[in-house]
Amino acid sequence: MPPGPAVSAQRRDTAGARGAVVRAEALCEEDNDPRSLPGASASLHPGGKGAGGGTRRSTAPNVPSAFRSMGTAMPPSRWTVAWLLLLQGCSMGCSQPAASPRTDIRDCSVDPPYLPPTATNSSAQLSALRDAMRARNIHAYIVPSTDAHMSEYIAERDARLGWLTGFTGSAGTGVVTEDRAALWTDSRYWTQAERQLDCNWELQRTTWIESIGTWIVEVVPAGGNVSLDPFLFSIDTWHSYQRALQGFGITLLPMETNLVDQVWGNQRPPPPTSYIYSLPEEFTGSSWQEKVARIQQQMEEHTRSPTALLLSGLEETAWLFNLRGDDIPYNPVFYSYTLLTTTNISLFVDSARLTAEAQQSLLSGCPELCVELRDYGQVSAHLRHYAQGNVTIWLGTEYTTYGLYSIIPQEKLLEDSYSPVMLAKAVKNAKEQELLRAAHVRDAVAVIQYLLWLEKMVPQGKVDEFSGARHIDALRWAQQHSRGPSFESISASGLNAALAHYSPANGSSRQLSVDEMYLVDTGGQYLDGTTDITRTVHWGTSTPLQKEAYTRVLMGNIDLSRLVFPSDTAGRTVENFARRALWEVGLNYGHGTGHGIGNFLSVHEWPVGFQSSNVPLTAGMFTSIEPGYYRDGEFGIRIEDVVLVVEAQTKHPTGEKPFLTFEVVSLVPYDRNLIDVDLLSQEHIQYLNAYYETIRAHVGPELQRQQLEEEYQWLQRSTEPFAQSNAASTTASMLLITSLISVLLAQLQA
Amino acid sequence: MPPGPAVSAQRRDTAGARGAVVRAEALCEEDNDPRSLPGASASLHPGGKGAGGGTRRSTAPNVPSAFRSMGTAMPPSRWTVAWLLLLQGCSMGCSQPAASPRTDIRDCSVDPPYLPPTATNSSAQLSALRDAMRARNIHAYIVPSTDAHMSEYIAERDARLGWLTGFTGSAGTGVVTEDRAALWTDSRYWTQAERQLDCNWELQRTTWIESIGTWIVEVVPAGGNVSLDPFLFSIDTWHSYQRALQGFGITLLPMETNLVDQVWGNQRPPPPTSYIYSLPEEFTGSSWQEKVARIQQQMEEHTRSPTALLLSGLEETAWLFNLRGDDIPYNPVFYSYTLLTTTNISLFVDSARLTAEAQQSLLSGCPELCVELRDYGQVSAHLRHYAQGNVTIWLGTEYTTYGLYSIIPQEKLLEDSYSPVMLAKAVKNAKEQELLRAAHVRDAVAVIQYLLWLEKMVPQGKVDEFSGARHIDALRWAQQHSRGPSFESISASGLNAALAHYSPANGSSRQLSVDEMYLVDTGGQYLDGTTDITRTVHWGTSTPLQKEAYTRVLMGNIDLSRLVFPSDTAGRTVENFARRALWEVGLNYGHGTGHGIGNFLSVHEWPVGFQSSNVPLTAGMFTSIEPGYYRDGEFGIRIEDVVLVVEAQTKHPTGEKPFLTFEVVSLVPYDRNLIDVDLLSQEHIQYLNAYYETIRAHVGPELQRQQLEEEYQWLQRSTEPFAQSNAASTTASMLLITSLISVLLAQLQA
Repeated sequence: MPPGPAVSAQRRDTAGARGAVVRAEALCEEDNDPRSLPGASASLHPGGKGAGGGTRRSTAPNVPSAFRSMGTAMPPSRWTVAWLLLLQGCSMGCSQPAASPRTDIRDCSVDPPYLPPTATNSSAQLSALRDAMRARNIHAYIVPSTDAHMSEYIAERDARLGWLTGFTGSAGTGVVTEDRAALWTDSRYWTQAERQLDCNWELQRTTWIESIGTWIVEVVPAGGNVSLDPFLFSIDTWHSYQRALQGFGITLLPMETNLVDQVWGNQRPPPPTSYIYSLPEEFTGSSWQEKVARIQQQMEEHTRSPTALLLSGLEETAWLFNLRGDDIPYNPVFYSYTLLTTTNISLFVDSARLTAEAQQSLLSGCPELCVELRDYGQVSAHLRHYAQGNVTIWLGTEYTTYGLYSIIPQEKLLEDSYSPVMLAKAVKNAKEQELLRAAHVRDAVAVIQYLLWLEKMVPQGKVDEFSGARHIDALRWAQQHSRGPSFESISASGLNAALAHYSPANGSSRQLSVDEMYLVDTGGQYLDGTTDITRTVHWGTSTPLQKEAYTRVLMGNIDLSRLVFPSDTAGRTVENFARRALWEVGLNYGHGTGHGIGNFLSVHEWPVGFQSSNVPLTAGMFTSIEPGYYRDGEFGIRIEDVVLVVEAQTKHPTGEKPFLTFEVVSLVPYDRNLIDVDLLSQEHIQYLNAYYETIRAHVGPELQRQQLEEEYQWLQRSTEPFAQSNAASTTASMLLITSLISVLLAQLQA
Repeated sequence: MPPGPAVSAQRRDTAGARGAVVRAEALCEEDNDPRSLPGASASLHPGGKGAGGGTRRSTAPNVPSAFRSMGTAMPPSRWTVAWLLLLQGCSMGCSQPAASPRTDIRDCSVDPPYLPPTATNSSAQLSALRDAMRARNIHAYIVPSTDAHMSEYIAERDARLGWLTGFTGSAGTGVVTEDRAALWTDSRYWTQAERQLDCNWELQRTTWIESIGTWIVEVVPAGGNVSLDPFLFSIDTWHSYQRALQGFGITLLPMETNLVDQVWGNQRPPPPTSYIYSLPEEFTGSSWQEKVARIQQQMEEHTRSPTALLLSGLEETAWLFNLRGDDIPYNPVFYSYTLLTTTNISLFVDSARLTAEAQQSLLSGCPELCVELRDYGQVSAHLRHYAQGNVTIWLGTEYTTYGLYSIIPQEKLLEDSYSPVMLAKAVKNAKEQELLRAAHVRDAVAVIQYLLWLEKMVPQGKVDEFSGARHIDALRWAQQHSRGPSFESISASGLNAALAHYSPANGSSRQLSVDEMYLVDTGGQYLDGTTDITRTVHWGTSTPLQKEAYTRVLMGNIDLSRLVFPSDTAGRTVENFARRALWEVGLNYGHGTGHGIGNFLSVHEWPVGFQSSNVPLTAGMFTSIEPGYYRDGEFGIRIEDVVLVVEAQTKHPTGEKPFLTFEVVSLVPYDRNLIDVDLLSQEHIQYLNAYYETIRAHVGPELQRQQLEEEYQWLQRSTEPFAQSNAASTTASMLLITSLISVLLAQLQA
């Protein structure tokens, strides 16, 4: 699954997508990622996990205009001359699909307004919130879409924006005043917002905090108060609001009482009560004591000598203590904070939920390394007390709320973008690498089973997007160590795949057909690792444009995967190798190219990947590589693999840090039916053939072990080596012909 | 000439190189650019422009270890199989040059310290400065290397750091306390610093302000005062010092009296008195009134409705008013500030220096658009007065000092990284493009004359680096509209080219020889445009490694030059296309890949280029593309062209902004002797042949017009098309062979 859009100066807690980042290169980022995050797509299900009320259905896709390209379908050609002619083409016949009247979105310009059945009546919620605002003399209240841990995915009880607005996209900001209400979200969600909002809400099609500030300044009188819950906003976002409102006589008031929670009242989903458990030792890279010792060593060695490290990210505490829970769908984490000092460890969590083994594990380091369990709700008070001493508190600003941050006096702060725990987690040790590799072998089995099953079932008209998604989920569950999908399966046929954040709903999903392309983006949680893979297939005859686009997406995937680059290269500076083959003919995609992934943790594991806030690539990191191409109203393509950053063998070895490259650990062949071999270079073909040999070597034995003979045969067929392209085959022919000439000459002489 | 290192979180006014940038991607930037800025290399000349005293000479080069690569020279091979074998190579015989005792650098560990003749005795300067510090109770004083306009190049009277330390590198920071003194600079200048500093100075081999802060905190007692001249530091740098020193009981005091200037006294070079003149209309893209009107329109349309725009960058005022001067070597600018309000224009300049025509031009807009001339020294007072009103002042933080910035109340500020003038200047209009193209045609004539001259003279042993540099400077001066070189010519033979910021000195420069590679990086100022081009040549037999490296540098130049990319792509995200061919075999270069360039302005024109602070690429921008490869103690390669960003014709046209590509405007062929055609792809060869046709079409007629017949013949020889590579020639052979077989078969049948 692709990362969220690499928006600039926007963060998880703003209108920008979660997973987005700080200090981006301001003008050089796409903000048009059409991919979903699970929270968003879940909302399209009747009875799904979305917080809003009304009936929902999935309808025709709509892709932001930034992705549209108007090229026409071209016949493929084997010959260079023909290609050159084609380069002149498309001056005629490049038609766009005709617009049809829309009944799936609201129309607030008519009287009475037209609302689709997917819209939520928000009047009661707004009225209650406004009462609460008046009681506190608040003129505007800002509601974000994240939780107190800056989580990318959130639990239902944190879906405040969804409850208030009906909008269940994963990224957005709502602002409510006495008589107006507006929602800001990025282009991925504009159509969804028009389907889910009623006419109480203005939709603002941008995500810049400056824009939110400008709107507030226009509607709030001078002397007015604007408020928000500082425990739901990042430090940077808080400062951005401050800057946006300064000089207008408006006061920005942080208020610990969350007004939405107050009016949501007992309708708000309760805190989770499920177990928090220890990950068995066989699935951990090192003990929590070892991890803690390494972090404490970093604290000692730091020039600022921090006395404590504050961890707010849910992944951070889960990883550090080798604990897991299930507080957030698809993410085995649990509500928690950690304050790790040089002398002791405070874990803020609902301790009643810890299993006996987990409690035992946390006590096993005593008395040297004791974990003190404290109430989750006590973190602010404890931090306030601790910060009174002669201390220096280290924290990662990316995962810390302004609320916690503002408790600590400025001179006692040591700030980095990411905590040392986040950075340690990003680089997998040898055991963690082996665990993740092993998970990918079993995951490949499930995906191969699914692809073979589709080959048989689709021509019989027996599969739709929803039943397909359910089937692959079931196949994953059947694999050893499975803990289910790592995000809601994206299963999209034909034009639905162009709306790349589409997940199907039962009863309304599209039937899979040999006449359409099908995109399946899924992943699994296993005790040994998290997986994420996308394959796009066609069981019939693709159009020339589909085949060209697929091949160019594949070329991009290969060009980046086989790249050799210096150690510590920033992913952002190489991700365009995955786009070059598309760019060459005027095509592109609007989302990021990859994201880190965890060992039974998050499917989007920051700060690894190819976006501007990601840290430099280092041996031991895992990231996805996933270029795509999306054509509004027609089809969508994405080819996603997870790769491991490894040392490269170069002709000229450097005396310093070795160069790096990627090793692909996703082990499922691509659809031969969609590859135009004539577009590939020699290097592409060599790479593909080597990759297919790797797949055979690793997945073949596992298929046999699982007695999946038919799948084994399918794998052999699907990984037949590709013939070398013209140049090489010409050389071979030359040798043959030379022999032939010798024979002829001999005959002549005879 | 390459841009300075793309250092992160470092700026022109810090130890980092000038031309460096803010908000960089923190961990992903090189800070190892071995290239010089003119100010630095000039210092190696006896009697040169360096401010320090002692005799200077150029000695053996030294490249930071980050650039060393240990591959050995390999025999070349025409055959793939041989190449594959070579990939295994270099496991033995990869020797490094033996270290020899150094007499060119200081040795402070012996008693008495060893000082080379290039070192400056700084005792008197330090003593005077310390007296001044004591008089004001200052415990540490910080001295930067830039001027009050954050200029990349500075005039002698601004070379405060050079006067104080003897160090004349273009980037550095000095800090002096009661009993210690330290200089921070980046790896380009470590060797130079060891040659120029005496043992009064510690050399700190880093450029992070945090490191400077840590040092200060260690040596300054709690309660101590640290001071600096706020009119020589950027806003960001000031804040960085504040952060670095906070919490240690040390006060950071801005002090308008510059203590270095005070003790430098009447030895300090006086302000310039030369004329400031109007650029003739034929050399301007539009009148200053049109430029001002467009900027004022942007002010009106801005949501914050700024009432004034403050311009501190010397290029900004020069460009806006179509004025030029010569206050800074190689840069036709003059000391000035501009405050452009919605109702009037204040130009702060020594008005006595304006020519009558310039005065006339500035008055020509009256009474609607009047330029009020004010004393250069009045800018602070005027700004202070203006800022008392109900105003909003727009400024670009990159070129504004903290001194000016702090005059404006926070709520009256509108900050961007770059002013709208800087951004307008970056995109050349049609006329400016034509002017720059024309300058490059004449510039190509001079370079071609030089290359032919070298071909004849070098085998006779008649050229050294210095006389070569003088000759190409003279050839440029002879071209129409010439105003001399745009930076100090880099003319480096053999191992000197590995020290890429090497400029030769008379009497000590290396003789050019058919046994060595030679790198020449030069540029010209013409009334119609600024140029910058690097060619590397070899008149004899290159080693296999030299040829491979040269070819791969060329491949990188081509790969980036022919790239097709979406509009608004950030240069930083595509610059690695220029490195891929080198990376593939474990090679790299440590500097940026390109920089903007002006119309008779700066040879490094920000914010255009491929570094992280550069703005996205837009049609109409000019930038250099200049990959290289440097091998310590052996040779250096760089191939630099200036290119124009143009719209691309793609197979699939987009409905939105067109895709872009580059058009090369530098028009000088590459050295065929150094190109290994077998490494090139079909696309490379096609590209080269098309480029050579362009050179013939544009430069051929100009050579004939200038009656340079021998050069014309040289150009024809040097731009012969390359044969298509194996694949194509194989296809041709196939056709021949097929015919042959037909004949043979016919004979057989006969």
